[in-house]
Amino acid sequence: MRVNRPDEPSYAGGATFQKVPLALEARDLAGADVAFVGAPMDDLVTYRPGARFGPREIRFASDDGEPFMHNMELGVDPFDELNIVDHGDAVVTPGDAHASHRAIREAVDRVLAAGAVPIILGGDHSIAYPNLAAVASGYDTGSVAVVQFDTHADTATELGGLKWSHGTPFRHLVDDAIIPGERLVQVGLRGYWPYPEEFDWARSKGVRWHRMSEIFERGIDAVVDDVLAEITGAEHLFLSVDIDVLDPAFAPGTGTPEPGGMTSRELLRAVRRLTVERGFVGMDVVEVSPPYDHAGITAMAAHRVVCEALSGLAVNRRDGKPEPEKSN
Amino acid sequence: MRVNRPDEPSYAGGATFQKVPLALEARDLAGADVAFVGAPMDDLVTYRPGARFGPREIRFASDDGEPFMHNMELGVDPFDELNIVDHGDAVVTPGDAHASHRAIREAVDRVLAAGAVPIILGGDHSIAYPNLAAVASGYDTGSVAVVQFDTHADTATELGGLKWSHGTPFRHLVDDAIIPGERLVQVGLRGYWPYPEEFDWARSKGVRWHRMSEIFERGIDAVVDDVLAEITGAEHLFLSVDIDVLDPAFAPGTGTPEPGGMTSRELLRAVRRLTVERGFVGMDVVEVSPPYDHAGITAMAAHRVVCEALSGLAVNRRDGKPEPEKSN
Amino acid sequence: MRVNRPDEPSYAGGATFQKVPLALEARDLAGADVAFVGAPMDDLVTYRPGARFGPREIRFASDDGEPFMHNMELGVDPFDELNIVDHGDAVVTPGDAHASHRAIREAVDRVLAAGAVPIILGGDHSIAYPNLAAVASGYDTGSVAVVQFDTHADTATELGGLKWSHGTPFRHLVDDAIIPGERLVQVGLRGYWPYPEEFDWARSKGVRWHRMSEIFERGIDAVVDDVLAEITGAEHLFLSVDIDVLDPAFAPGTGTPEPGGMTSRELLRAVRRLTVERGFVGMDVVEVSPPYDHAGITAMAAHRVVCEALSGLAVNRRDGKPEPEKSN
Amino acid sequence: MRVNRPDEPSYAGGATFQKVPLALEARDLAGADVAFVGAPMDDLVTYRPGARFGPREIRFASDDGEPFMHNMELGVDPFDELNIVDHGDAVVTPGDAHASHRAIREAVDRVLAAGAVPIILGGDHSIAYPNLAAVASGYDTGSVAVVQFDTHADTATELGGLKWSHGTPFRHLVDDAIIPGERLVQVGLRGYWPYPEEFDWARSKGVRWHRMSEIFERGIDAVVDDVLAEITGAEHLFLSVDIDVLDPAFAPGTGTPEPGGMTSRELLRAVRRLTVERGFVGMDVVEVSPPYDHAGITAMAAHRVVCEALSGLAVNRRDGKPEPEKSN
Amino acid sequence: MRVNRPDEPSYAGGATFQKVPLALEARDLAGADVAFVGAPMDDLVTYRPGARFGPREIRFASDDGEPFMHNMELGVDPFDELNIVDHGDAVVTPGDAHASHRAIREAVDRVLAAGAVPIILGGDHSIAYPNLAAVASGYDTGSVAVVQFDTHADTATELGGLKWSHGTPFRHLVDDAIIPGERLVQVGLRGYWPYPEEFDWARSKGVRWHRMSEIFERGIDAVVDDVLAEITGAEHLFLSVDIDVLDPAFAPGTGTPEPGGMTSRELLRAVRRLTVERGFVGMDVVEVSPPYDHAGITAMAAHRVVCEALSGLAVNRRDGKPEPEKSN
Amino acid sequence: MRVNRPDEPSYAGGATFQKVPLALEARDLAGADVAFVGAPMDDLVTYRPGARFGPREIRFASDDGEPFMHNMELGVDPFDELNIVDHGDAVVTPGDAHASHRAIREAVDRVLAAGAVPIILGGDHSIAYPNLAAVASGYDTGSVAVVQFDTHADTATELGGLKWSHGTPFRHLVDDAIIPGERLVQVGLRGYWPYPEEFDWARSKGVRWHRMSEIFERGIDAVVDDVLAEITGAEHLFLSVDIDVLDPAFAPGTGTPEPGGMTSRELLRAVRRLTVERGFVGMDVVEVSPPYDHAGITAMAAHRVVCEALSGLAVNRRDGKPEPEKSN
Repeated sequence: MRVNRPDEPSYAGGATFQKVPLALEARDLAGADVAFVGAPMDDLVTYRPGARFGPREIRFASDDGEPFMHNMELGVDPFDELNIVDHGDAVVTPGDAHASHRAIREAVDRVLAAGAVPIILGGDHSIAYPNLAAVASGYDTGSVAVVQFDTHADTATELGGLKWSHGTPFRHLVDDAIIPGERLVQVGLRGYWPYPEEFDWARSKGVRWHRMSEIFERGIDAVVDDVLAEITGAEHLFLSVDIDVLDPAFAPGTGTPEPGGMTSRELLRAVRRLTVERGFVGMDVVEVSPPYDHAGITAMAAHRVVCEALSGLAVNRRDGKPEPEKSN
Repeated sequence: MRVNRPDEPSYAGGATFQKVPLALEARDLAGADVAFVGAPMDDLVTYRPGARFGPREIRFASDDGEPFMHNMELGVDPFDELNIVDHGDAVVTPGDAHASHRAIREAVDRVLAAGAVPIILGGDHSIAYPNLAAVASGYDTGSVAVVQFDTHADTATELGGLKWSHGTPFRHLVDDAIIPGERLVQVGLRGYWPYPEEFDWARSKGVRWHRMSEIFERGIDAVVDDVLAEITGAEHLFLSVDIDVLDPAFAPGTGTPEPGGMTSRELLRAVRRLTVERGFVGMDVVEVSPPYDHAGITAMAAHRVVCEALSGLAVNRRDGKPEPEKSN
Repeated sequence: MRVNRPDEPSYAGGATFQKVPLALEARDLAGADVAFVGAPMDDLVTYRPGARFGPREIRFASDDGEPFMHNMELGVDPFDELNIVDHGDAVVTPGDAHASHRAIREAVDRVLAAGAVPIILGGDHSIAYPNLAAVASGYDTGSVAVVQFDTHADTATELGGLKWSHGTPFRHLVDDAIIPGERLVQVGLRGYWPYPEEFDWARSKGVRWHRMSEIFERGIDAVVDDVLAEITGAEHLFLSVDIDVLDPAFAPGTGTPEPGGMTSRELLRAVRRLTVERGFVGMDVVEVSPPYDHAGITAMAAHRVVCEALSGLAVNRRDGKPEPEKSN
Repeated sequence: MRVNRPDEPSYAGGATFQKVPLALEARDLAGADVAFVGAPMDDLVTYRPGARFGPREIRFASDDGEPFMHNMELGVDPFDELNIVDHGDAVVTPGDAHASHRAIREAVDRVLAAGAVPIILGGDHSIAYPNLAAVASGYDTGSVAVVQFDTHADTATELGGLKWSHGTPFRHLVDDAIIPGERLVQVGLRGYWPYPEEFDWARSKGVRWHRMSEIFERGIDAVVDDVLAEITGAEHLFLSVDIDVLDPAFAPGTGTPEPGGMTSRELLRAVRRLTVERGFVGMDVVEVSPPYDHAGITAMAAHRVVCEALSGLAVNRRDGKPEPEKSN
Repeated sequence: MRVNRPDEPSYAGGATFQKVPLALEARDLAGADVAFVGAPMDDLVTYRPGARFGPREIRFASDDGEPFMHNMELGVDPFDELNIVDHGDAVVTPGDAHASHRAIREAVDRVLAAGAVPIILGGDHSIAYPNLAAVASGYDTGSVAVVQFDTHADTATELGGLKWSHGTPFRHLVDDAIIPGERLVQVGLRGYWPYPEEFDWARSKGVRWHRMSEIFERGIDAVVDDVLAEITGAEHLFLSVDIDVLDPAFAPGTGTPEPGGMTSRELLRAVRRLTVERGFVGMDVVEVSPPYDHAGITAMAAHRVVCEALSGLAVNRRDGKPEPEKSN
Repeated sequence: MRVNRPDEPSYAGGATFQKVPLALEARDLAGADVAFVGAPMDDLVTYRPGARFGPREIRFASDDGEPFMHNMELGVDPFDELNIVDHGDAVVTPGDAHASHRAIREAVDRVLAAGAVPIILGGDHSIAYPNLAAVASGYDTGSVAVVQFDTHADTATELGGLKWSHGTPFRHLVDDAIIPGERLVQVGLRGYWPYPEEFDWARSKGVRWHRMSEIFERGIDAVVDDVLAEITGAEHLFLSVDIDVLDPAFAPGTGTPEPGGMTSRELLRAVRRLTVERGFVGMDVVEVSPPYDHAGITAMAAHRVVCEALSGLAVNRRDGKPEPEKSN
């Protein structure tokens, strides 16, 4: 169902990602290739809150009034190739993280039941657990690989005594055997956390990671080559993008920024390559905190990460061959 | 058509004023008592632009996730008493003010054709012309009175050589005999404009106005008493609220702020009284410029002006008697 | 224990309210007349978070580098008359509101055990429950009256299915017989909440309230006269100040701002008069959300509310007679 | 010399207050009635700096592209009645307050030598000393009265060991016999400073002041009546307006904001009345700190204070009779 | 004509770029090598407005109070080598883009008539049409090459039905044979626009472009080598710099930001090399939108782009040999 | 002395860098390896002030509530290896730069007397003089090398006639023979200052520098190699980091930002390498101006520069061998 009028400017109308049709009811999802789910919760952050306003701002972070797009690096319009809808926001309950996780899980399940690829707009990173639990449940164990772009490994057993936190989802996903450790690849780690215990656990589980210094030394392309190799064995790909993987210059509007991060062009390039080569069965983009953003640039970066992933998926389903626009 | 889910937080979902149903098509307007129209244009401002983002931010400026409300001064829930829908935004064309005015006029006409009261969210104040031209066309000449809350009289014949401007609509409305001068009452004028020529014209046409100093000296209640007397002869009321009537402390997010203005509680009180006593056949709220706002307080003030008007209309249609919530 | 050096500028050093000594351990509280407790939690808000950063910013919102002060309306220096210390922040757990409430309760209990008056800096308004439960436990039932400055009554039984919320503390305080309904007086209510059910409950319990319109019509002095009469029967006074009682112009940095509120000078004047006349046995100042503040003006308003209360307490303990500074 | 083109929008061109001619050289001042001097220094503030950017922002805080104006309360265009020029900024030296004071003094002296009324745009309030020293030197001792709108008395002998500070000018002006104590009237004092010593000194010198509470209780008009009576004996009037006399809601962009202050309409009204009745021989507007401002509202308030003073001066020189624009 | 005083700090005085003399009248332009023209219009943007405030902020974006400068990469002071003046702003008419274009054209024509190189400070990118139409008219057809740094190709035939827009100037410049397609080289294209139609047209016309991915893969130096080769045949160079070619991290204050862009050092380096090697006969810097800027960093980037171009021009006219400052 | 409670969130409590113990008195410094000194002065800046608020914001710029840290590039927790305390802020006097310099010198002297390494948090860069004068006095002449990360050389003899300024410390340090010219290495110079005179002086003194273009062309690693070679002869290293060496995208909150600068990851990497290899005997981090910062990203960058230096020092004192966390 279109909730916007043709030809309106980007800032007219509202509500859906890039003004795709709203598919609020489960039945509206029929036939969709991709469906968005908003997860406006930030109950489980440990520092700056605000990510509950993330889905709204990411959806609006476009200067285009229509679901048209021409990716000049890939030569594709994902809105043309794919049937993309917006399933609205999960009915979260502020102050009750568990109820919110359940609501998010149910929304993602509805998308999966319709055969569509879910793209979940966070919200804090704790939602990776319900997101991946939902997605992985539809596939053979170990067939889903996760590439996590993130400053922080998010592999604590607990933070402040809390098992469920934005700093713990990947520990529990692995320990609960939802995602085998060897199927988890982390890109962009930096800073002063986690502690040795978490790194030791990760090594024992076969988790792979690429610190920022590796990206600095070898370049993002070489690191993506490695990531592609590391996920070769898995049939499916899930992308989990914590926007704080970007340097605060590129993403000030996030809960736990860490200087020294990726540039936007590195992240967009990496997502483009991964999705062109592997497509994806699910994705989340998290930790956009609008109260700390400026001129919407963080929401915009998150929006474009999604656009690159959609474009990559479209190419992957077409013939896997980018057709960049070149001059003579 | 509901575009939101029950029980979601205010910041989930989106698109409509206070989450009323979206009525995008003309046929969806059937049965509506009130319908919102967004007019996201700012082409005709002379100083700070940005009002094109006004409709979006006004719609969202609520901490309530449902179209429920209990006005404690009036003892009424307008969403309960009235069938209120959102007709979305007029399909304006940035850079083409005339096309935008036409689109706004058409949207308001659709609302009127459905027998609903239009509330237009601006946008710059130039839209008062199409708004009032549409509304007045349905009634006998002179039967519609306009109460304009505004810092500026907006009665120039032209500004910078332009006949159509946010500083001219009320001149043309009167000169074009759409609104007789005696049916126009301006509240909140202050500052250093217009010039004597405009004041002379206004006096010659029978326009009445109340400068800020009068509100300061006599109090808003006394001024509203006068306004009610001044519009006694008219059958219908149209409210045109330029948010810059508020002092910049209360409304920094506007195009031509002027220190020394009304407080929010004066404006809300005035709108409440006028609408309780007279109801209204149309309303616009204009000149909210989000790029200059802080923490959304200007959009919030505009949103509450609408809420008071809706509440007043509901009481007016009920029995005209406020039932304030009092303790024993 | 002083944690600052004499003669440093306000922006040097840090940590305590107006640079009073830090009394981190229970034993350090001995001899204190007043002790601050920070309650940096915002887990139970329903709209904009950020109040977890409130205590830090309120403490720093001073241009004075020393705990000296001369209240020119009262002719008193509370830091001279009273032994005031800062007990630091309760060890809250982000994401676990119940643990945080327990930690706040314990911190307030330590202050009370030392015979000092607690001033709790929030944090969201849910903390009124542990705060008042702690304070009331030391006095005969019904001997503590609460004057609550607030936009919202905060008397829901639950919000979004949650019993504990920033919108429910006063319902439970009354229903749990911690504060009898007749001992609760609310000042500044406005807007579109609560619903009739809550107002009916409040009337049935004998709660008294003063809407903003009453302040507008009669003036704050007349309303304070009434409030003083309404709490005559109670031996002790607790002040609960939700900073959103101020208009967003004066306090943009709060979670659920509502246009049409009090001015700073009305609030400071009311707090001054109440505390001069009645002193107080406890106080909280809540809902300062720094991410939405500008130039620290909201934190500053909260800081000054505390300064007026401290000054009033000092005069109340001296001889109850203000000695304003007058020129000849 | 015009440095702007006719008919340009307000945001085109630049440099002078309301686009009056630039009179950079002493000789250019010949024939001027009023001349602006910028004093971009903030070396002597004790808290938030930034006022060095005040003159620039105050000059630009207009939505009008021409030096035309019609004051609707007074019925006058000061730019029509008076020859107003802008003498540019004093060549201050950042880091050397004494050199800056000298440069400011010299610039004001040049204006006075040309027979024009100086309006100095600060800058921190320490500049009141050179400003008034210059102005008073041209008149009989005691013939110049000063009305100071300010939160703070600025009558310390020293602050942090420094004799010259933004908190001391009026002490030294009186103690140095430049302005007799009985010729100094302060309006808007509030908060927790100065200390009893300063108040005692002020009483001993015959200084008069009006605290904010007096304005609250009696209204600004009654206070202005008193002020007019208090300065009756003096032949000439100098206005010193510290923008922090306004509440932070109206003037967040200042160095030492203090909640509980004046509203813009009170200040504009007071300045209007004083200048209509008495004219003025000099004026400064100080402590606008743009880095802490939002949407320019503080600079705008300062700009309008000047506009009211200019308008009042024009009426005073005309016939002293306001001719407000009234409807029939 | 100097409108500033020697030795004043950067924030004193005002009005001209880097405080060069103001040359407001055509006759004042005599002898100038370079002259600035402000083009404060944003009527033809499709998303965020605000660029009308660009010229003012770019002019002020300097921490230097004098037109002195020592470019340490080139060993040159352009203000020493060249006679640089500021022709002020074109007298644009807000709301009338065509009148504004005419005014801009006339101002640029005046500069050209005086034999000076025009540097136009925008304003939205639609002004490239009058700018280039003016510049190209003075040279043989095809002798002027344009290097356009931009995210967007700006080669639509129309946007929203409007031929004149900030998204169309280069289409019309080529189609109107003002700039042959082979003389247009675009650098920095990225994102999801234009559509295949525009790319096909561009190829058919011989336009060359360099996408961001090419800069990422080959480095800016290699791309500049290519650009230099591509413009070899043209006698003259015009630079058109849309500040949105920078990543939003470096230029948040622009109308249609697009993540994944150039860094400031890449852009400054590219401009430096191009101008050293080729000099230039005209330049515009556009789309700086101050309402969306933070701490002036976007205006500052635009200001430095101009400084590098001026420095490059000075070296080009000297002997073409950079003399970087090196340590022993 | 701990001034914080264990397990509190980062935003609870306050006052010290990363919540290390406060060592306010000289005797509290006994046994410390490293001690922080705040230098909250900005009296000697020439453009944007605000750095007086730098120390407070840098100290708080952490999302960690405890002095624990695990540097994943180095495999070390400096808070575990080193005894780190915070000596609070020097008692500066706003408006009296010389008194402030003395106070800073005394505070650094106290740290040095205790045998600890001082890390001074500025404040403007003028403090490099007292800082280095103090540090160098404890070692043989010429045994201390200084690596200065900075946009500006800060080697003027005077600015605006002032010998002491944030633009002069390194001139006087060399001319006063505190630091021999050959022991000063500058990294990151760019822009349009200093002038040839300063460069000539620097060459004559044997100062070495690395312009940004060198970092761009050769990479930061090659430049750090050179720097290490250039300081080989010196026994000790002092690091002076002016945060404006970063591009404004990464550090908007500084007094004299200059586009075209370093990225955070380059700076952190350079500091890490230098300190691992050479340790350091003193460090300052200066020119963080919070009023111009956004979301605290500049303060955060400064905080992390310190964290990298502390980590490097810990490794240097351990065995000099980084143990990066790698996956299998």
